[in-house]
Order: sequence, then C-alpha cells, then structure tokens
Amino acid sequence: MKDYIVKDPWQIIEDQFRPEYNEISESIFSIGNGRMGQRANFEEDYSGKSLSGSYVAGVYYPDKTRVGWWKNGYPEYFAKVINSTNWIGLHLTVNGILLDLAQVTVKKFERRLDMKAGVLHRTVGITLSDGTQLAITSRRLYSVVESQSAALSYQIRVVQGTAHILLESGLDGDISNRDSNYDEKFWDEVARSANEEHISLQLKTKKTGFDVHTRVTQQLVHDGQSIAVGEVIDREKYVAQQYEFTLESGQEATLSKYAVILTSENHSLADLSAHAETLLQSVADKGLEKLINEQAAGWAKIWQDSDIQIEGDVAAQQAIRFNIFQLYQTYTGEDDRLNIGPKGFTGEKYGGVTYWDTEAYCIPFYMATTKPEIARNLLIYRYKHLQKAIENAAKLGFKDGAALFPMVTINGEECHNEWEITFEEIHRNGAIAFAIYNYVRYTGDVSYLQEYGLEVLLGIARFWAQRVNWSEAKQQYVMLGVTGPNEYENNVNNNWYTNRIAAWCLQYTSEVIDQFASSNPDRLQHILHTASFVTAEKEKWQHIVANMYYPEDAEGGIYLQQDGFLDKELIPVSELPVSERPLNQKWSWDRILRSCYIKQADVLQGLYFLEDHYDLDTIRRNYDFYEPMTVHESSLSPCVHAIIAAKLGKEDKAYEFYLRTSRLDLDDYNNDTEDGLHITSMAGTWMTIVEGFAGMRIRDGKVHFQPILPTKWDSYSFRITFRGADLQIKLDHEGVHVNNSGNQDVQVVLWDTQYAMLSNGTLDVPYAVTSKA
Amino acid sequence: MKDYIVKDPWQIIEDQFRPEYNEISESIFSIGNGRMGQRANFEEDYSGKSLSGSYVAGVYYPDKTRVGWWKNGYPEYFAKVINSTNWIGLHLTVNGILLDLAQVTVKKFERRLDMKAGVLHRTVGITLSDGTQLAITSRRLYSVVESQSAALSYQIRVVQGTAHILLESGLDGDISNRDSNYDEKFWDEVARSANEEHISLQLKTKKTGFDVHTRVTQQLVHDGQSIAVGEVIDREKYVAQQYEFTLESGQEATLSKYAVILTSENHSLADLSAHAETLLQSVADKGLEKLINEQAAGWAKIWQDSDIQIEGDVAAQQAIRFNIFQLYQTYTGEDDRLNIGPKGFTGEKYGGVTYWDTEAYCIPFYMATTKPEIARNLLIYRYKHLQKAIENAAKLGFKDGAALFPMVTINGEECHNEWEITFEEIHRNGAIAFAIYNYVRYTGDVSYLQEYGLEVLLGIARFWAQRVNWSEAKQQYVMLGVTGPNEYENNVNNNWYTNRIAAWCLQYTSEVIDQFASSNPDRLQHILHTASFVTAEKEKWQHIVANMYYPEDAEGGIYLQQDGFLDKELIPVSELPVSERPLNQKWSWDRILRSCYIKQADVLQGLYFLEDHYDLDTIRRNYDFYEPMTVHESSLSPCVHAIIAAKLGKEDKAYEFYLRTSRLDLDDYNNDTEDGLHITSMAGTWMTIVEGFAGMRIRDGKVHFQPILPTKWDSYSFRITFRGADLQIKLDHEGVHVNNSGNQDVQVVLWDTQYAMLSNGTLDVPYAVTSKA
Repeated sequence: MKDYIVKDPWQIIEDQFRPEYNEISESIFSIGNGRMGQRANFEEDYSGKSLSGSYVAGVYYPDKTRVGWWKNGYPEYFAKVINSTNWIGLHLTVNGILLDLAQVTVKKFERRLDMKAGVLHRTVGITLSDGTQLAITSRRLYSVVESQSAALSYQIRVVQGTAHILLESGLDGDISNRDSNYDEKFWDEVARSANEEHISLQLKTKKTGFDVHTRVTQQLVHDGQSIAVGEVIDREKYVAQQYEFTLESGQEATLSKYAVILTSENHSLADLSAHAETLLQSVADKGLEKLINEQAAGWAKIWQDSDIQIEGDVAAQQAIRFNIFQLYQTYTGEDDRLNIGPKGFTGEKYGGVTYWDTEAYCIPFYMATTKPEIARNLLIYRYKHLQKAIENAAKLGFKDGAALFPMVTINGEECHNEWEITFEEIHRNGAIAFAIYNYVRYTGDVSYLQEYGLEVLLGIARFWAQRVNWSEAKQQYVMLGVTGPNEYENNVNNNWYTNRIAAWCLQYTSEVIDQFASSNPDRLQHILHTASFVTAEKEKWQHIVANMYYPEDAEGGIYLQQDGFLDKELIPVSELPVSERPLNQKWSWDRILRSCYIKQADVLQGLYFLEDHYDLDTIRRNYDFYEPMTVHESSLSPCVHAIIAAKLGKEDKAYEFYLRTSRLDLDDYNNDTEDGLHITSMAGTWMTIVEGFAGMRIRDGKVHFQPILPTKWDSYSFRITFRGADLQIKLDHEGVHVNNSGNQDVQVVLWDTQYAMLSNGTLDVPYAVTSKA
Repeated sequence: MKDYIVKDPWQIIEDQFRPEYNEISESIFSIGNGRMGQRANFEEDYSGKSLSGSYVAGVYYPDKTRVGWWKNGYPEYFAKVINSTNWIGLHLTVNGILLDLAQVTVKKFERRLDMKAGVLHRTVGITLSDGTQLAITSRRLYSVVESQSAALSYQIRVVQGTAHILLESGLDGDISNRDSNYDEKFWDEVARSANEEHISLQLKTKKTGFDVHTRVTQQLVHDGQSIAVGEVIDREKYVAQQYEFTLESGQEATLSKYAVILTSENHSLADLSAHAETLLQSVADKGLEKLINEQAAGWAKIWQDSDIQIEGDVAAQQAIRFNIFQLYQTYTGEDDRLNIGPKGFTGEKYGGVTYWDTEAYCIPFYMATTKPEIARNLLIYRYKHLQKAIENAAKLGFKDGAALFPMVTINGEECHNEWEITFEEIHRNGAIAFAIYNYVRYTGDVSYLQEYGLEVLLGIARFWAQRVNWSEAKQQYVMLGVTGPNEYENNVNNNWYTNRIAAWCLQYTSEVIDQFASSNPDRLQHILHTASFVTAEKEKWQHIVANMYYPEDAEGGIYLQQDGFLDKELIPVSELPVSERPLNQKWSWDRILRSCYIKQADVLQGLYFLEDHYDLDTIRRNYDFYEPMTVHESSLSPCVHAIIAAKLGKEDKAYEFYLRTSRLDLDDYNNDTEDGLHITSMAGTWMTIVEGFAGMRIRDGKVHFQPILPTKWDSYSFRITFRGADLQIKLDHEGVHVNNSGNQDVQVVLWDTQYAMLSNGTLDVPYAVTSKA
C-alpha cells in the first residue's frame, strides 16, 4: 500500500517526481472518453520505467494463445485491445540535449488530474547539464464532446539561460504491446501523409483488419507568432513536423496539438481520410481553450447526474469521484458494440475484454446514474453474442440451443485459455441472466424481456438443464466440475453459488414464460417457436429447481462453498503472517487451492444477489463464517462484503471495505496498479455507498433505503435516476433529505416507511426514525 | 487402427510405398542403441510428409514454457531432448533430376527392420521422368557394440538407361525441432571441418551448452574402385562431400558412410575432436560388413536374455519382439544419468524426459531381463535428484526435507507446466518409493536401501505427512486437490489410489527404519542424523497410516476413485457411440472431466501394486466396476488391466488387452504413432506376458508363477534373471517347463506348489496340476 497521492476533493495530485512509481501514476492519471483513452505517459522522451499505452475501444488483435498442452475446446486466440498510434509523443532537444526526465535534473514536478474538467495537467521544472533551466507545462484531454478527438498543449518556458530548441512532434505507429504472446507487432501501415499543414497515419491491425486513421495538426506559438514548420519527417509508420527556434530567458513557446482518431468500425474505409480531415479542421478551429471549456461543460453534465458528495472525509470524497470519473472515462454507453474492459484504457492486463464484471458490478452503476438506454445497451451486447454463446456451448458438447457465454470475450467468442476458467467458471451465465432480472426490476422495462431478454434466458436455462446431472447416489441434481467466483478453488463439485444461481435462472426463465403467456402470448409463441422450445423443457427445469442439491452444514447453519469444504484446515486470515500476503504473490498455486482462503465473495455473492430469499440470521451466519477466511485478493471482493456488512449493522467493517475498494488504485493496495486501474471494481465502490451505506434496494417497483452514516463522515449525497424520477439523496447527522427533480412521482421507502416522492418534491426524514437492521 | 505391417517373427516389414503413412513408419522403423537413435527418415531428399529426427540421450534444451496466466510455482522451462545433426542425409541428382520419392515414380518399395540383427533395410525401385530406372538399397545401424558410432550403406544401381550422378553426402546441423514453443532454433555452431578425408560438425546447445561433435568419413565404390571426392562443401552448419560419376545400365555404386557422435557429457571439450578422429578411424577400418556382423552378435546377446517366444501366433510374436527391441534400443542402463523417455529416440513428443512410467512399468522389465545394476541405475537416477526434489517441494510450500519428485524431468527439476499435473499428480512420489520396494523385493539387495533408498523414502514420507491434513469433519486424514493416474480427472479430493500409496509409503518407510535399527544401526543413525529426523515424525506417520480416510462404497464393496465419484452418470464405455472415441480427440476437456470415463488404471493401479493386501473378491468387484468405464486412452492402461484380468481368470479379456498393448504402435491403435513410439508402455507389454499370462510374482524371496496359455497360442517362453538364477520358463499345452541356467539354486512356486530349481536344473510340471484363480 502506498500513500503518495495528495488528497483533494476534485483533483488527483502527484506533487513530486517519483520515477519508481511512474508506471503506477501513468495508470492513475489515465484519461479517456469512452471511445478511446491513454495512460499518462509523458509527451517527451522518457527512458525510465514506463508502459506506453493509447487504446481505441473495439480495436483488438486475436493473439495466439500460449498453452502447454492443447485440449479440445480450448480457444484458438486471446483477443486483446491493443496499444495504438502514439499521438502525444514529441522529441525536445535543447542546446543539443535531449529532454528525458530520467536523464536531467528535475527540480519541480506536478501531475494533476482535474476530474471536474476532465483535463490532465503537468508542470515540470528542469535544469539541464549545461545549466539551462526550463519549465514545461502541459495539458491534455480526450474530448467527451466529440469522442474522436483529443488535444494537448505543451509549453516550454526558459527560466534561465538561452535555449536553442529543436522540437519534433509527430505520430508514431511503430508501437507494440508489452503483452504480446509471441513478441509480434500487431499493426501494418496502410497510408501516411505529412506536410507543413498536417501529419497522418493510417494503420491496420493484422488478422482483424481494423483501420485506425490518426490525423494531427499542430501549431507552435512564440511571442504571439506562429513558428513555421521546418523539416517534415515521413518514414514507415512515423510522421512528424520539426520546429527550430531559440528562447531567451523568460521567453516561452507553446505547442498546440490537435488529433482525431477514426476507425473503420465507425466510418467506411473510403471516407476515413476525408472525415478525418473535416473533423480535424473543426477541432483545430476551436483552439485549445475552447476545447477545454467544452470539456469542462461536458464533464459538468456527467457530474450532475453521477457525483457523490462526501463531507468530512476528503480521502473518501476524492476516492469516490476518482472511481466515477474513471468509469465514465471508460464507458459512456452510446455504442452497443462496446463493453467495459476490467482495466479500461489504462493498461494491457485482461486485454480490454469483457468479463462478468459488467453484469455483476457495472450495470447497477450505469442504471442508476444515467439514462436506462445505457444499461440496456450493455444487455444488448450479450444478446448480440447469443448465437456465438450457443456455438461456444456446442463446442463443449452441449446441444439444442444451450448457450454458454464466454468468460472473456470481445466478439462473442471465448478467448480465455485456462480450462478451469473457460470451461468451468460457468456462473457467469447466471450473472448475465441476473443482470436482465436486475435491469427489469430497476427500470420496469418489461419490453426488454420480450424484445431480447427471454431469448438469452432460454439459452442460459437450457445450458443449466444440461450442465447438471442426476446423482443416483444423492437422488438429487448435482453440478460437477465447476469454478465458482472464488477462483482460489478450481474444478469443484457443487459450488453452492453456481448451483443456486443455476436454479434461480431456471426458475426466473420459467416465470418470465408464464408472465408472457398472459401478457404477450403472440410474442412468446414466436420466441418459443423460433427456439424450438418444447414444454417438457420447462417441466424438466422445474424438476431441477425442486431437486437441486445444495451442500450445507446443517449444524452450523451455513451453506458450503462446495462439497468437501469442511475437510479443509479452517484457519482465519488474521492468523496468517503478514509476510505471506497477498497469497497470490507469496504462495504456490497448489497451496492456495488446498487452503480455505477465499479470493472474493462466493457463497456471499449468492446471498448478495438473492438476499430477498434469505433471512438476516442466515446471511449473518454465512458472513461470519466466510469473511474471516476471505483474503479479498480480487478487486471485486470488498464491495460485496461492504454491502453485506452494512446490512448486518457492521458499520466499521463496511467503512474499512469502502476505503479498500475506493482507494484500491490511488493507494496501490494490491501492488498492481502499474498494470492499469481496476475499472470494473470502481462500480463496486459506487455500490458500496449506494447499496451499502445508503442501503438502496428495489422491491416491488419501489426504491428502498436503509441509510447509515459512517462515523467519520458529516454527510454524503448521491443522485439516482429511477423510473423517470431523479432523486437526490443526502444523509447527514440530522437525517435523510430526498429531492426529486425528475418528472415522475415515485414511492420511496425509507427505513421501511413508504413516502410518496412527487416530481420536484422534497422529503426530510430525521435520523431518529432509524430502524436497526 | 491400421494393419499394413507385414507379419513376421523377426522382421518389421512395410512392403509398399505409402506416403500417407510415412511419419508412422518413420516412428516404427526407428533405430537406436540406448545412447542415441533416430527416426527412419530417408537418406535422400523427401518433400512429402516427414518428421526428421536424430537424438542424443541427455542432450536437451530448456525451452521456455507456454503458459497463459503464470502462477507461483510454475516451472520456467520445459526441457526437451532435441533433434540434432543429421548425419544420414544426402542429395542424389541423376541426369539433373533430384531424387525425391514424393516427386518420382516409385515402382517398388520395401522398408524392413531386422530386429534380430539390429539393422534397418530399404530397397526402392524408381523410374525418373527421363525414363531412367534405378534401384536403391540402403542399410543402416546404430552400433550396440560401440554406442557412439553409426553407419550406413547406400547402393545405387541403374536398371535401365545411363545415369550421370551427382551425389552430395554430408552433415547438416541447421536443424530445428517441430516442437519449439517459440519457433527458435536450439543449436549454435562451434566448429566444423571438411576435406577429402572427412567432414565434421561440432554444435553446442543454446543455454545448456552441450557440445555434440559429429564426424563422418565415407567412401564411394564403383566397380570395386573408390571414386574420389569432387567438391567439398563447407558452410555454416553444413559440410559435405560431392561425387560425380556415371553408371551405365546394370552398374552400381555404393556409398559407405561411417559416423561417430560424441558429446561433452562423455568427453572433455578439449578431447572431443581428437577422440572422434580416433574412434571414427577404428569404426571405418572395420568396414560395413564387419560392423553388421558385430551388430548381429551384439543383439544376439540381448535376445538371449530378453527374448520371448510365442508359437502359433505370428502377430503376437512379432509384437512382443518389437516391444523388447525398441526398449533395448532406447535404454541399456549403463549410464545412471540417463533414463527412459516415453518416446525414446523415435519422436519429439514428451520431450524425451522422465515420467513415473520408468518406476511403474520399466523397472520390472529391466530387473528381470538383464543384470540388477541396470534397475539399480534407474533408482540411483532419482536418488541423484533428491536434493532437487526437496527444492521442488519447497517451492510449493513444503519444508523440513519433504521431497516431491517432478512429474516430468531431465535434470531433477520439474518441467511440466500444467498445475493440475505438476502440483497435483503427486502419486508419482508413491511409484518412486514403490520401485525401491519392488527392486529390493525382487533382488534381495537390501544394501540399496542403506546406501541410497532410505534417504529417498524419508523425503517422500515427509512429503506425504505434510500433504495430508486432518479433517475435523471426518476425524480422519484427507488429501485434497490431487490428480490420480487417471488424468481424465483433475484436482479431486481423496483419490483412493493416492491416499493408499501415501499411507503405504509411510508404512514402508517406518518398516525400513525399524529393520535397520537392528540390522545396521550405525548407518541408520547416520542417515537420520543427516536428515535431522526426529522420532515424532514416525509417530505422526503411524497416526496417519492408522487414520487415513479412504473413500468407498461400502454397499457395493468398491473403493471410490475419489470423493463424489458416485455422483457422476455411470454409463459403460460400451454404450458410447464408436464415433465419439477416442474421447480425447472427440470430446471437450470439460466433458471428459465431468464424465465417469477413466483414462488408465487408477483404483486398479493401487490394487495391482498392493494386491497382496486385498482378497480376490475385492479385486474382482473393483475390476468389474471400473474396467467397463475405462477407455484405455493412455498406452499404459491395457497392461495393468491385462495382468488383473489374467489373475481373475478372464483370459479372453487379458488376451484382448495384450494385443492392444503389444501392437499399439505397429497397428497405430491410437492414431498417434506418427508422433513416435510408446516406448515406456512397451515394458507394460512385457509385463502382460510375464506377470499376466505367466502370473509371475515375488513373495518372500521366491518367484511364483500362475501361468495360463492364451487359447490362440501353442506355447510361449521367456527368460528371467532372478537372484543369480537364470530361468527359462516355457508354457505349452502339456504344462510348464522351467530351466535354470544360472549359477544359483532358487525356489520356484508353480501354481502354489514350491519347487527347488537347482543351478542347471530343469523342471516340468504338467498343466493338469493347474489351480484355478
């Protein structure tokens, strides 16, 4: 754990040059706009620790997998969103000395991410080996207004001495991934052009054939005068413009660089170049200051809907805003072909591909903080992959329309390559079904089920019905050979969570069919006919629901994570030496697998999803049994535990988990922020406040709150959109204040008392009314 | 399954040119001498299907592993014995046409492996595009007399037309492995020389730095006259001599090529070249005919001790000789640094490294067919790796001298890279301990235990004692997260075989300590002191032995392969459609894992090793339960089943398994002979006859037989060396005939009746005395 980020409610600040943390900061200070983004690499050369990265959503390469011993059903490739053309780079030579912060004396350094405005700032004070002193100031943004554009300004000021400067600023397409299984490069050049007016590069990904066209125009101003371009560099995969000029002490010059990045996914190949030219012109015409103003206005709109204010705890305030900021930098939801990579545009790990994180963690965030179409698009993403999910299941031997959605995907095909995950961590199918239920529960949008949802549910239900088998020995249905959410167990039998979510899927799909039988029989008949559904299937589902085996310890009143869990040595994490943690860095995989230690919520994930089916004592017993053995080495673990802890009245524990999840990256809690940020877990942080501290639940079409105020906080407030209402909820020492600025009246249940929240109405309920959990 | 090899008692014959089977034949016709060997590649160019391969024992490369997601404890590399300098190759150009059997008309073709003499023959009749007809005859051997030498003759005869011939015969060191994880080449050139007298190449393996020096001298004779070398070719990694000459119709010319292959493992680097020169001279001086005679004499000695004669079944006769021949081509046992790769020198698969196959299958063969030092050397191989095994266990978190021998190794370090095998298939430790017991049981050589064996047993016992854990729920010791011999299950709990062999190891080690306490207390004290052994350890072992949990189905009277086995759908293999087999080629890994199907003996492996602990009914019940679910997709499966079937009086089943194991490669039963031969399972074939049909067992220092005669056979006979006796056992329709040509009297138990077999004595027991199993 580290603690070097300066605390501030709206800014992320690094106030010293810390070369050893540079890759961590590159992750933390990442910027993006949902369509593209990049790590906070320096513009100028840097020979120190650095992971260069600029990414464009949806542009991926199917890297050949690395597998020791191939087995049937293994995917052929691991798709990864790849590092693409570097548009920020420049070479700055002053008096013959190349500027490289690893090679010069850095006197002053500040990196600052203005989350309110969506702009990255950097100021550096440098002394060169010849005594020349410079001050560099840069600003950078990925526009949230026009998502194919980005811009930066780079100011050089001479503090002392005279500087003969050669500045070469360009586009570099000769880039590679650090994560390349066979050290291959993934791009071919298609076209380039370079002259005094502009530079451009068009590259195409190998195999997948995505064209990415990057076009830049730039301007260097000194003393109010443009400095003309000197030499133009134009070679394979690299184009640049050079400027040569001299600055005396006290003088400054500023480069403004405007870039547009267009892909063949959004434009026809023939139009790509022309579109880029037009768009770039309009961006450059605005100029940098106007772009920054537009950016701030764009972010203000996002913050209006999604901000959470925390008073009395600046670390907590900064953290939650950082989480929300990064989520909206990663995914804005306009494009239903896109999804949320676990690291967004902040690193290479997990390849920018889609995991069940989206359904389990991100959908609740987007449902509540923006218009319902966004969450709907995330659901449609899976709907579009249904056919591939059926093919994926068929590869494993399933039939008759059974669908297994991939563990890891970008185009609907499975691309993870560990059998224990790909073939066995099938609970993802449950989360995908649950997200449909969750969306309908939240939005009331039953039409989604009719249009898309039921087809997905059918495929999933059919999978579960084939995946279980009847045990003659138990006279119940069992599910063998699975990996639950706790990936510190592999290939177990009867993972309670998986059995439970499978039965839930079968039950829910049956119920949806029953509902439609009365509400929309024609559509139902069409869907069932298309799917060649026979009534016997539903009967089988009901038989499975009624006869599913659930491992449990009846005596202790707990559900067993899997068969045989009680054969393990059950020693609480608190008794492990600190030096042995995190286990995934200190222990062999063998030892982890055999131990009782739990990576992330497993039984508790089920009790979280399906809490309405369980009484509080059951939840408490299971929490008290499993949490002490949980090492939370998945970023997705603390949030679920925080929510359950809050529900159980364990406020200190909930707050501890909140800090852990919200500052996971800012404080580099797991020693892995250098790989990129834990984007999807950031939605879990939001859930910690809204579902945890505020206790938000949706039941019977009404929103419920059971809020608690963490001791350290004076107040917190957040906003949710709910069925046309726009609710601002604030909890302070007095009580709860709710304000509905939407155009719909809704019912709000506060501490079990129902209130009508009229459009534009307000409500104040004193804290004294609290009903204890 | 294929059936193209001509049946013959001493020859393996392919009587037609079958390009589609060429890689299979290249495996089947492989030759070697225990020190080195090669696939039956053609001498001349061949552009058809072919896997080129020449291997030198112990010369390996640590290829970087391919792992999708690295985890702690994974090995860094996969060692593989690599393809090395090709000494047989030549380019033959006739009237400007390059001879390539894939490009010319092949009129006649025969490949013939003379197992009696250890010589590979090939004759080919060819018509070139210009009408010229040629007959090519080649002979090739790897000397079993001087194991660093090899030789070939290559005769070209013109049948019709006039042939202007350019023959270039050389040494090619620019070779690569088909199995190279990152398409790297593994060799650097160190030195080469080439002139009219000789050619030589010295290559060094990258990383491991083994030098292999290959030196060739050759002679082309036409009409009794040597043809002088024309041009000498000398370039990076390639040296050759050219001959230009003309043959008229009816004329012939013969190239004799002599090679010596020396490595830095056996000679100092400084001496390598000089040694090669001297050795080559002596080999070439003999000339090819003398070398062939010596070779036949060398093989005659091997056959004298190890041959099995079967009368009345030429397919069975050919098969058992093929198995024995290939075993002795792979391993002769003089060098305790060497071991037996699963494919010997016949292919790249499994990398020529050591598996538990050696202990479980090969040691019994070598113990009985040659002097005891050979089996002893195989045991010493593991003893030499003890320290590495302790380090290997430490990597996984074990301590205090616990040793886990690798699943796959060449130098004592683990080099497999699937966690479910490397970390979990730990029963190999049991087989290594059992082999010590088995060796002592067979030879009576207790000194081995004192000198080496006990130290290995201590390390293994300590491993098991740490690997089990006490289950509070069961109030017994359990062993979680293992993979048994049946690799169609991974990461199971309480694999019966592993629990059983672990307990057996603890018990045996305790007994050995107790025996030595009286017989050799000084040596015992020394060993225990060196190992920091404390008495409490043995007490703990005894507690484990007394309280080990064994999964069983008490009602059915069977041991369960693992916890939860009865939850599976239990459907016999006979009900699977033929089109779905072999499962490992037709089913996804997921489906295999969840199914009841068994790759190779698992519970039955335990009942085979420890049969003296179980009554016949128990063995029968378990065989009848498991065999019908066994797909025998490991080459190591049929032999154990054959032995048990024979014991249970299921003669037809035993014979079926015999054919399957003995002709596995000759008939390409598993569609994988092209990868190389299943060398280690060939020892299992031998066991099928000796332990299966002949029912040989060692009990109380005496050799027992319970022979049966397969219906199709008139007789079979084999020879074993046993404690100084040299027993020839023959079973025919009359009964058993035993002859002791050794210098020791021994007790032989035939159908439960004990007979004294005096040195040079004979014994005839009529078949009527049979006691039925």
